[in-house]
Amino acid sequence: MNELDKDCLFCKIIRGEVASYTVFENEDVKAYLDISQVNPGHTLLIPKKHITNFFDYSAEDAQQYLQYIPVVANAIKNFDPKITGMNVTTNNGESAGQVVMHSHIHFIPRFAGDGLNNQTRNNADNYEPADYQKIADTIKAQF
Amino acid sequence: MNELDKDCLFCKIIRGEVASYTVFENEDVKAYLDISQVNPGHTLLIPKKHITNFFDYSAEDAQQYLQYIPVVANAIKNFDPKITGMNVTTNNGESAGQVVMHSHIHFIPRFAGDGLNNQTRNNADNYEPADYQKIADTIKAQF
Repeated sequence: MNELDKDCLFCKIIRGEVASYTVFENEDVKAYLDISQVNPGHTLLIPKKHITNFFDYSAEDAQQYLQYIPVVANAIKNFDPKITGMNVTTNNGESAGQVVMHSHIHFIPRFAGDGLNNQTRNNADNYEPADYQKIADTIKAQF
Repeated sequence: MNELDKDCLFCKIIRGEVASYTVFENEDVKAYLDISQVNPGHTLLIPKKHITNFFDYSAEDAQQYLQYIPVVANAIKNFDPKITGMNVTTNNGESAGQVVMHSHIHFIPRFAGDGLNNQTRNNADNYEPADYQKIADTIKAQF
């Protein structure tokens, strides 16, 4: 627990200072219901370490914490036979919609005809091969 | 390459039968531009194994493939100084918006004022504590 932050809301949830509806917990992670249920079963998975978001994960953090994603996805899927899909999403940084600055992964169960939409914007008609290539080459140089 | 599917579009991309704008590749995974760039730099990360989606990941798959998420996120972030955030998302199952049935993780760079919205629906006013507790207990029983 030495790696928690004094004032962070999610660190307070980990320490039990703020209540949560827990669905899974071990030494590495905690999973609990998002207070705003986009759909019933909407769950957050967080590392028991104060990491801001994916940009700040070390290689060891990735190994330790991300392995639980399929475990949590399947448990949520199995809780209601009407769940036929799931969006597993993260908002990294304020411009991406991150509000609490402690890394958290959203699991949003999907039901047929639930009226939710995915983040989409069809831009394929606006890109030429050279546009793609330039972007790809620039990203490639960052690895 | 024995774990690829003959007819899957993304397996064809892995085999090089279909062209892609590659940004990263090793023995485990391949990352390349989504042909529909929701924002410039929109990238897909896929395992070099035909797995439908997160529901079908074994514990070993999770260890092997998910560790690359922060690596890819940081490389994309570093390609353009105007990128201040990133949505890292997956659509698992058709009802969640999955179109190609080979697991793929979207990396969508975010820019201030880019006009994209996140998946949200504020339901906190519609839930009583007993509603949350019932959902949490039912999910908890699936682990």
